[in-house]
Amino acid sequence: MATSQQIHLVSRPTGVPTQANFAQVEVSLPDLNDGEVLIKNTWMSVDPYMRPRMIDRKSYIAPFNLNEVMEAGAIGEVIESRNDDFPVGSKVSHISGWRTMHISDGSDLTLLPNVPLPDQLFLSTMGMTGLTAWAGLTKVISLKETDTVFVSAASGAVGSVVCQIAKLKGCKVIASVGSDEKAQMVKALGVDAVINYKTVANLTEALEQAAPHGIDVYFENVGGDHLEAALNVMNDYGRIPVCGMISGYNNDTAQPGPSNLFYINSKKLTMQGFIVIDYFDQFPEFIEQMGAWISEGKIKSEETVYHGIENAVDAFLGLFEGKNKGKMLVKL
Amino acid sequence: MATSQQIHLVSRPTGVPTQANFAQVEVSLPDLNDGEVLIKNTWMSVDPYMRPRMIDRKSYIAPFNLNEVMEAGAIGEVIESRNDDFPVGSKVSHISGWRTMHISDGSDLTLLPNVPLPDQLFLSTMGMTGLTAWAGLTKVISLKETDTVFVSAASGAVGSVVCQIAKLKGCKVIASVGSDEKAQMVKALGVDAVINYKTVANLTEALEQAAPHGIDVYFENVGGDHLEAALNVMNDYGRIPVCGMISGYNNDTAQPGPSNLFYINSKKLTMQGFIVIDYFDQFPEFIEQMGAWISEGKIKSEETVYHGIENAVDAFLGLFEGKNKGKMLVKL
Repeated sequence: MATSQQIHLVSRPTGVPTQANFAQVEVSLPDLNDGEVLIKNTWMSVDPYMRPRMIDRKSYIAPFNLNEVMEAGAIGEVIESRNDDFPVGSKVSHISGWRTMHISDGSDLTLLPNVPLPDQLFLSTMGMTGLTAWAGLTKVISLKETDTVFVSAASGAVGSVVCQIAKLKGCKVIASVGSDEKAQMVKALGVDAVINYKTVANLTEALEQAAPHGIDVYFENVGGDHLEAALNVMNDYGRIPVCGMISGYNNDTAQPGPSNLFYINSKKLTMQGFIVIDYFDQFPEFIEQMGAWISEGKIKSEETVYHGIENAVDAFLGLFEGKNKGKMLVKL
Repeated sequence: MATSQQIHLVSRPTGVPTQANFAQVEVSLPDLNDGEVLIKNTWMSVDPYMRPRMIDRKSYIAPFNLNEVMEAGAIGEVIESRNDDFPVGSKVSHISGWRTMHISDGSDLTLLPNVPLPDQLFLSTMGMTGLTAWAGLTKVISLKETDTVFVSAASGAVGSVVCQIAKLKGCKVIASVGSDEKAQMVKALGVDAVINYKTVANLTEALEQAAPHGIDVYFENVGGDHLEAALNVMNDYGRIPVCGMISGYNNDTAQPGPSNLFYINSKKLTMQGFIVIDYFDQFPEFIEQMGAWISEGKIKSEETVYHGIENAVDAFLGLFEGKNKGKMLVKL
């Protein structure tokens, strides 16, 4: 009888999550029914959006239940099959991560395309992460080559792709990161200027210095001080695609927002929130474009890899400690 | 020799402006040159946007200079003319208010259309105020009849027109006002529910009660607590045209913004700032539509009138004390 190691949410975090909020549980898997496959997961994704899902409140996605296995993007290989669409050896993506094994009737599975790319890219640049960056820049707003773009969390999973797409589009790109090591990384991706927000005295002044003609686009991953600085330095008619606001995810008590929101009015700015789910129908267009960029070496897939299901929680917690460069992944 | 009474800004206000920031000055006017006209102003407009113009900082419009007469929308009548385009008796609109007389070469003048409407409407519903409300609802966003619309400062110049246009479009309209008297006024304009924000214990709860299915559009005139409540109660894909944020105009020290801006992301909201100047080219379309509505009695022009240039500063200060119902005007 097959078993799966899986991670349960056992208590709802207050503030910064800790190991105590999670438990690793071994479960026995039933035999397959007709139409089902057994998948050995090989990679899983940990992402900041999982933190708000640990709170019991209404949102665009249901909260995680207590004492149940959580969801995460994952890649796996079919090791036993009673479904002709997914024979043994098929590589698939799905959202039943946080576990080593997954039984499926196939309805939640997508076959990985047969392209010469590492599997885990379908959790990063070729997956939701890449789609998020691409949709934010090309569908939520229409990026123009004359735009000066400010990217927060620029060394992160989405940020590192945003920087590269914006450079490919011909934009000037200013990146904000949290360490000198990450600054080196995003410089290597070709950005025009990097700010280490942890060492600058004043983020607005640093941004003004990096973008003396102001910024036209702020790709919002962070919120808080970064949004305030961006509003200060934005040019008229600036656009702010709002991808996330990680700075607030671990605050259980409400943190005040920026004090300069009036610039939205006086500078005629547009802030637009988006969730990647709404752009799933554009996956084919995205895959074609991104696949070409990656094949031509124009987009690099930065990644940080933790190993083993037993380190998956550490990988997740590391997102809030800035431990990842590029996409945070767990190799199962 | 003609003289003009005019109001100068003599010091930059800190916090709430006072009479001491202004002075009434009598100036002698020169004789007219060829091409010039002398205008006796009959009406002038005072507006919240004038407050930020009293601060010496870069914005979409140049700050007022110290010890000079200020600008304001005004209506006047030509009483002496050396310009055939504007014979004596012509009624004109221009931006040289805060004064009883104005000499012009005609380049800044617009003749009032020959329609049977009170002159001052060209400073309110048929002027910039009406254009602001109309453009915010129909050009910045595309109002749909299925929208539930929340309007802050709903008894104000712009707000009272927003309420009426939204009702004409078939929307459900929730209005927020600062007194029971104003609540009566906006009820008479046909809104579905009114909140007196000064007497409710919790603005979010009051809004939830008034809009149990959430709000789709928040017409932002106020900022602060109103924005926070609107974000709490907004439905997915909600739109927020940002017309102004008067709650912050008299704060010299930065006030924190709402603590729930993450809803912009998770609810996929759009906030879009706009300034009416950008919609001046749509004036003909606006005038045709609004003129018809007013003629048919479908839009009422609410107004509060102060009398005499010597009371113009009081009228302006009254804007921040909630003394106006509808458009605040000064009859000169």
